[in-house]
Amino acid sequence: MTRNPLVSDAFVDLLMFDALDVSALTAFDHFREHDRGTFELWVQSCRRLAREKLFAAYRPMDSAPPALSDGRVRTHPVMNELWPALAETGVINATRPYDVGGQQLPFTVATIASFYLLAANGAAYSFAGLTTGAGHLIEAFGDETVRGLFLEPLYNGTFNGTMALTEPHAGSSLADLTSTATPRGDGTYSIKGSKIFISGGDQSFARNTVHMVLARLDGAPSGTRGVSLFAVPRERPTNDGAWEHNDVHVAGVIHKIGWRGIPSLALSFGDEGDCRGWLVGPSNHGLKCMFQMMNEARLLVGASAAATATVAFYESLAYARERTQGRRLGDTDPTSKPVALTEHADVRRMLLEQKCVAEGSLALVARCAKFSDTAQHHPDGDERERAQMLLDLLTPIAKSFPAERGFQSNALAVQIHGGYGYSSEYLVESWLRDQKLNSIHEGTTQIQALDLLGRKVIARGGRALATLCEEVERDLATALSKGVDPSLVASVREALARWSALTQALAAKGLAGDVHGMMGHSTDYLDATGSLVLGWLWLWLAGATRAREGHFYDGVRAAARFWVTREVPRVHALAAVIERDDQAFLGLDERAL
Amino acid sequence: MTRNPLVSDAFVDLLMFDALDVSALTAFDHFREHDRGTFELWVQSCRRLAREKLFAAYRPMDSAPPALSDGRVRTHPVMNELWPALAETGVINATRPYDVGGQQLPFTVATIASFYLLAANGAAYSFAGLTTGAGHLIEAFGDETVRGLFLEPLYNGTFNGTMALTEPHAGSSLADLTSTATPRGDGTYSIKGSKIFISGGDQSFARNTVHMVLARLDGAPSGTRGVSLFAVPRERPTNDGAWEHNDVHVAGVIHKIGWRGIPSLALSFGDEGDCRGWLVGPSNHGLKCMFQMMNEARLLVGASAAATATVAFYESLAYARERTQGRRLGDTDPTSKPVALTEHADVRRMLLEQKCVAEGSLALVARCAKFSDTAQHHPDGDERERAQMLLDLLTPIAKSFPAERGFQSNALAVQIHGGYGYSSEYLVESWLRDQKLNSIHEGTTQIQALDLLGRKVIARGGRALATLCEEVERDLATALSKGVDPSLVASVREALARWSALTQALAAKGLAGDVHGMMGHSTDYLDATGSLVLGWLWLWLAGATRAREGHFYDGVRAAARFWVTREVPRVHALAAVIERDDQAFLGLDERAL
Repeated sequence: MTRNPLVSDAFVDLLMFDALDVSALTAFDHFREHDRGTFELWVQSCRRLAREKLFAAYRPMDSAPPALSDGRVRTHPVMNELWPALAETGVINATRPYDVGGQQLPFTVATIASFYLLAANGAAYSFAGLTTGAGHLIEAFGDETVRGLFLEPLYNGTFNGTMALTEPHAGSSLADLTSTATPRGDGTYSIKGSKIFISGGDQSFARNTVHMVLARLDGAPSGTRGVSLFAVPRERPTNDGAWEHNDVHVAGVIHKIGWRGIPSLALSFGDEGDCRGWLVGPSNHGLKCMFQMMNEARLLVGASAAATATVAFYESLAYARERTQGRRLGDTDPTSKPVALTEHADVRRMLLEQKCVAEGSLALVARCAKFSDTAQHHPDGDERERAQMLLDLLTPIAKSFPAERGFQSNALAVQIHGGYGYSSEYLVESWLRDQKLNSIHEGTTQIQALDLLGRKVIARGGRALATLCEEVERDLATALSKGVDPSLVASVREALARWSALTQALAAKGLAGDVHGMMGHSTDYLDATGSLVLGWLWLWLAGATRAREGHFYDGVRAAARFWVTREVPRVHALAAVIERDDQAFLGLDERAL
Repeated sequence: MTRNPLVSDAFVDLLMFDALDVSALTAFDHFREHDRGTFELWVQSCRRLAREKLFAAYRPMDSAPPALSDGRVRTHPVMNELWPALAETGVINATRPYDVGGQQLPFTVATIASFYLLAANGAAYSFAGLTTGAGHLIEAFGDETVRGLFLEPLYNGTFNGTMALTEPHAGSSLADLTSTATPRGDGTYSIKGSKIFISGGDQSFARNTVHMVLARLDGAPSGTRGVSLFAVPRERPTNDGAWEHNDVHVAGVIHKIGWRGIPSLALSFGDEGDCRGWLVGPSNHGLKCMFQMMNEARLLVGASAAATATVAFYESLAYARERTQGRRLGDTDPTSKPVALTEHADVRRMLLEQKCVAEGSLALVARCAKFSDTAQHHPDGDERERAQMLLDLLTPIAKSFPAERGFQSNALAVQIHGGYGYSSEYLVESWLRDQKLNSIHEGTTQIQALDLLGRKVIARGGRALATLCEEVERDLATALSKGVDPSLVASVREALARWSALTQALAAKGLAGDVHGMMGHSTDYLDATGSLVLGWLWLWLAGATRAREGHFYDGVRAAARFWVTREVPRVHALAAVIERDDQAFLGLDERAL
């Protein structure tokens, strides 16, 4: 397994220190006790955990998914070792403050370190990521009681956490949630309802599970404004400090095609009328609170998608180097020696496309993480606001681009393996299966597209859009000054101008009341935006190599060139389709489909 | 299951009788005993077999793939019913001449009927398709002895057939085959070697299996010119008319991620030095003979890919009609009733994209089949030659477009199902798995691209290219005359002109010795060609509706419009990338990847 590095250490170094300059984060008061050394130590310990423990458990967990037995879910036995290892390393609370037992690491550093864990074993890491999210909700919005009950055991791994939003009839439409919460008079609420697709909703390695549940208080308004957030443990505390059954039942295990190490469950709350929840945050503001976790979860999905594309890329690269087959274009001598697959033009295309998508996606997610740290901890309020705008705008892209293009990228990793890639004797097919979920969970690609165009790029009367353009232009100027090919910079500038004009034209349609004209092609718009953003980020990375020599730096510059010459032109092609705005398909009688 | 039609009967009628005018084939002497009625009867009997028997067996066969036991492969028990049903219906020899027991049906009609069988259960049908191919090789090239031994039992289903080309070390590179054949002096040959990825290479429903094996005679030239073709049965005939062990062993079962109903095997021939083969066709001309089967097999893969996209499209369409969720764009009233998924703009996009790819691919494969019938049976030699050129040129596209775009289309079918689509409780995930193989087996997409650009479009000094342009232009003129939107016709004409100019420019580079300049972007070229060809075919289909009214015809015209406005512009975008001809990635040191 050692031939697959999971993620390139050289790339991580370039990203962290040359491109993102994470050391500068130590200037923020919140991170003042850190330095480059503590950041490197953290990445190293996650890298080691990933390579030495998580990766070896990946295929066994994929092959023997959790099963229901006597009403409880048995996770793979190897999780009994991995979970303490994750908790003891400090993965669950790495970014949380010292006062709740955390290491107060920048989100950027934690995110980059998580790439290794996600590439090695996304399912195993996700138990931890979801637990962090649940803990963070309670830390941010919970009162003393809730924090006292659940925070420490979540952050130290005694309990695991989940987010329980989706209901079977409503799917993505959270406005239609029907789970209910009735005050019991003792400060707790009686919870009743069904949830589905709850990742990590039960397990056999931690003492208890705490679900962050969206439900409606009696008499709450309809729609999303009547939704409240509750912490609902599988076992609840008794007066004498013990824990007892809390009427949370596993109603079924979803047989997923990937992410098979972590169970996805249908859960019933309150079948026996005896399920208690603790309100977290103000009543009827549950969705607002939950969005903190959802935005974190969306970046986590992006990170997972990027890491899944990355590990598959390295696997197919190693295979292409080892496997000899056929001859170079134009060599018709059958007695010449077969060459490595890397010598075939189209295999190179497939490798470079994967490299661009995979490492470009890592860069996108890491850049978002830096905006998150800046938005929370920069001493200057304007800088915080600016970073928050950029984070908000980029989140739907960081969630969906790695998932959508990562799926294509993972298919290329299979393709490079030929018939072998189509068999479960090789690993690449499993990452293809894993990847597909990333365009569905935590808001489908379509929902991200609506969020990007209908909310994010038009935020603050155009300021978000202007800020992104300014940020891109700043990086392009820097890249130019660091020796990046001016023709590549010009290509991204042209695409940016076209995209910006398109965005303004679409916003104008929306303001004029033509909602279908604005939003009818939102997924194409998201697609175009992703191609553009990756072009920007690859030139940023190419600039960060500062014309240094060596194969690794050549590879970064080659990837930048490859993406900008091949993919950035898609922005114009997609813009033309969107501008043409053919709405015939929207008006078609559905019986004609 | 009845809610899924597998393939639309209305579409098949339009394709067969309005667009392809298959009735006209009865004017060829070879088909003179047929009429529209016998064609319809054949389609109906395959349709019924598909809907009533094959589809119900699809999931059971996917869930319990063949396994090795005591050296033999046990296929799913349901195949014991399906195989006789396929054979008795006449599926194996439908197109073969009356004098070998066939029905002498046009390949076009058989291909269209096969869409239903492939959509219902591609694995089950493939046993038959491969058996037809093996029988056809023996019929065409075998001497009296070989024909006498194998033809009847293959065509009546007593035996099944395979093609055994690939060897573990050589993959797609047939020049590097090392299996050997030594004359035994009795007219048979002693065969020795290992083959891999042999579909249907063993089974438990037919009496025997006949492998069509490529091997080298002692002292044969190296490369593809030293390869001969042999019929190698699992059990060979004895002098007294019985059958005995022929030293063919199953060395392993590949654990495929799809097509799980049909085993893919590693086979050893002659481990005990006692494996006999019968030469089929002239010595050292095996690859030429095999290409007949491979070209049929490539169209079969295209048909399978198209059918797999089609059945998944209908499944997701039915789901989108039944499932209510969320509200229309702009409706912010949470008390309004949720609408069907078909009302969401982006779900419509995903449905129409699937429709275009799926039904457009059916049309592409069926059109190729008609060229095949014309090439073989048209009374006019020029017409035969013309049709053969078009068939040759279109085969790599018909093999790869349905596979590549079908995979994206099948991913959309999963996406429309949301989280449910990611689970094996629903069928769509299985077609996504099945589809991936179609870009790999029978020559990968990359090999099809090299074939198209390096051989097919430049064939006969440019005549093949000119003939295709002429054929497209003829259909566009007809479409215009039948009321198809002139702006759509103009779009396809522009794309055709651009593509034709690009092709000539690439050919000129090749003639000047710049093989990388010509071939370095061949997969992009294949991609562009596919988008163009589908644009042509959709306008052809739209013209065939002759402006008739009704939801079905509206749907065909909407699909044509959708494809031409959204996808045909990709021809220009891809042409720009190819023309730019950035070869930096080819010169990169592989250590930089």
